[in-house]
Amino acid sequence: MNFNIAVIKGDGIGPEIVTEAIKVMDKVAEKFGHTFNYTQVLMGGCSIDATGVPLTDEAIETCKASDAVLLGSIGGDTTTSPWYKLEPSLRPEAGLLKLRKSLGLFANIRPAYLYKELKAACPLKDEIIGDGFDMVIMRELTGGLYFGERKTVEENGVLKAYDSLTYDENEIRRIAIKGFETAMKRRKNVVSVDKANVLDSSRLWRKVVEEVARDYPEVTYSHMLVDNCAMQLVKNPGQFDVILTENMFGDILSDEASEVTGSIGMLSSASLSATSLGLYEPSHGSAPDIAGQNKANPIATILSAAMLLRYSLNLDAEADAIEAAVQKVLEDGYRTVDIMSDGCLFVGCKEMGDAIVERL
Amino acid sequence: MNFNIAVIKGDGIGPEIVTEAIKVMDKVAEKFGHTFNYTQVLMGGCSIDATGVPLTDEAIETCKASDAVLLGSIGGDTTTSPWYKLEPSLRPEAGLLKLRKSLGLFANIRPAYLYKELKAACPLKDEIIGDGFDMVIMRELTGGLYFGERKTVEENGVLKAYDSLTYDENEIRRIAIKGFETAMKRRKNVVSVDKANVLDSSRLWRKVVEEVARDYPEVTYSHMLVDNCAMQLVKNPGQFDVILTENMFGDILSDEASEVTGSIGMLSSASLSATSLGLYEPSHGSAPDIAGQNKANPIATILSAAMLLRYSLNLDAEADAIEAAVQKVLEDGYRTVDIMSDGCLFVGCKEMGDAIVERL
Ligand SMILES: CC(C)[C@H](C(=O)O)[C@@H](O)C(=O)O
Ligand SMILES: CC(C)[C@H](C(=O)O)[C@@H](O)C(=O)O
Repeated sequence: MNFNIAVIKGDGIGPEIVTEAIKVMDKVAEKFGHTFNYTQVLMGGCSIDATGVPLTDEAIETCKASDAVLLGSIGGDTTTSPWYKLEPSLRPEAGLLKLRKSLGLFANIRPAYLYKELKAACPLKDEIIGDGFDMVIMRELTGGLYFGERKTVEENGVLKAYDSLTYDENEIRRIAIKGFETAMKRRKNVVSVDKANVLDSSRLWRKVVEEVARDYPEVTYSHMLVDNCAMQLVKNPGQFDVILTENMFGDILSDEASEVTGSIGMLSSASLSATSLGLYEPSHGSAPDIAGQNKANPIATILSAAMLLRYSLNLDAEADAIEAAVQKVLEDGYRTVDIMSDGCLFVGCKEMGDAIVERL
Repeated sequence: MNFNIAVIKGDGIGPEIVTEAIKVMDKVAEKFGHTFNYTQVLMGGCSIDATGVPLTDEAIETCKASDAVLLGSIGGDTTTSPWYKLEPSLRPEAGLLKLRKSLGLFANIRPAYLYKELKAACPLKDEIIGDGFDMVIMRELTGGLYFGERKTVEENGVLKAYDSLTYDENEIRRIAIKGFETAMKRRKNVVSVDKANVLDSSRLWRKVVEEVARDYPEVTYSHMLVDNCAMQLVKNPGQFDVILTENMFGDILSDEASEVTGSIGMLSSASLSATSLGLYEPSHGSAPDIAGQNKANPIATILSAAMLLRYSLNLDAEADAIEAAVQKVLEDGYRTVDIMSDGCLFVGCKEMGDAIVERL
């Protein structure tokens, strides 16, 4: 089959990790008899340098016309890069937020799990790791505080900043459904996270989640306050299957959960819409400090490509093949610097990509 | 000297832990020749049961007329307790939020550190613990999302909830000053946490923190995004001295930091105003599941009493004496169930209080 994929290499280590993911996808195409047509799209700092804005309307149109979008990473060092001297709406991240909204990518799925082979990299004690952990954070991605109206005004000579957080029932319902559907394919447990003891949006969140839960009698679910969840992720990450939460809490908790695994260089993510169009990117950032040095771990991006095949192109066997190849390189001892440990085979970004391609 | 202290025992384990803290304060009074006059004040669930509201105006007046407020904990099980069937403004937590606002308690100080003796309880691997860690989270406590206007309305048959987040320069400046002042008495490092790549309030926060920083040339400081901070607390807690942040981020990060120590039953907190009046409470919650069983760890409350002596009553030697006595019981091997480990002396809440009193 023939598929059109928009590719956003982005900034920092973005280009090198995406290059490896494309190598892997090309091998899959060859093996399974597909054709992937890639269209390069600019977003982030590289787009600012080329066009003056972090995301052009043409770039959005190209993504909309594609079957899926593969993204590396965007942004630079926020204190030294000139991109961060621009007004907020022209900075790299504004491009990503705009793309999420334009494509209606309301559901961000971020798996966080411990690879048996990488237990040494996990910051937690062995007693807490126990039999390992394997959770998915389902984060609402186009509502809440990150998309509210905001302004800064001077009142009687004093600057005052406003941000606003709104959610309506429909926005909550569609992400809650994604959360429960995902749980049905996993261990059938949902923890919905909010701050219902303070926020109106959280009380509405809780109400709608309870309504949705009624349609999934097989799924056990509970509510947890966000401050408690930040504790529980460290105390006992094994208790979680699916964490369902709003945009900002999901931002914070998914990064915490990734770090708890100790292998953020391994973790992929998918941002889904109401159609099959989705955007796939590693959970980690653009790491400008190691860009262009062949040091980055391409696995998170390669696994994001696997998610792309699975969710947007409906190519399950192909996705399975990539995941199996990644599992195999780990078993064979290949390690980039971020996951290196004694007795393993130290490789660069490109060599890791090659090793995965070989195992396909 | 003669001091008036408002005492809020609260709900759950509140009464038993406060009883131990008072025992310790009474011993200090005897030893150093002071008189502490306690006035019992109701707040939270017990106040709802007695008066119909979580905090009465008289209760607020009593606190205002005191030199300091000592609080145990409030609230119950949010899914089973009848208090959580009431409308939001009548639930236990609303009392605490109202008290913070009424007393102008804008600065919440939460130390998070590893006790050498309790290393075994820390969830992190020894390599990450390294030489231990010792940080203070300085959380803004009366602004931001938790005190913004909120409402839930029906628009075209769809429920929609609004919360709002505002900060003005003055609110940010006074907490930033507290953060830098605290750093001056410690390791002279401030990490200011925000989400300046998205929020207007965070951009104003960053601007004001930079202005305040100019007055503290000896303090090194940096900015960190909240999602990154949630990761760094797990990855390398030893990097932090003072974390300075707004209300909601502080709520989440301070709970995460407490859990990272593994000894939340040990961690105190102070909420300070522009005057010497402050409120002191343990960092942990009301633990209704173990209430009244003599199982709770009273140390966090006892150390909160020490903070009360230090910050509100200006009794440094007295505070030092309590902290030294706590250190001594740990060295002597006394442990409540939450921090118990092999070879230690297992005690209940009351016995722990007695052991600390003996060492004063
Ligand atoms: C770049 C930034 C706006 C973004 C977010 O917070 O949503 C990022 O942190 C993420 O989690 O994808
Ligand atoms: C009870 C609740 C409103 C409160 C808060 O979030 O401020 C608590 O979690 C805290 O951190 O003191």
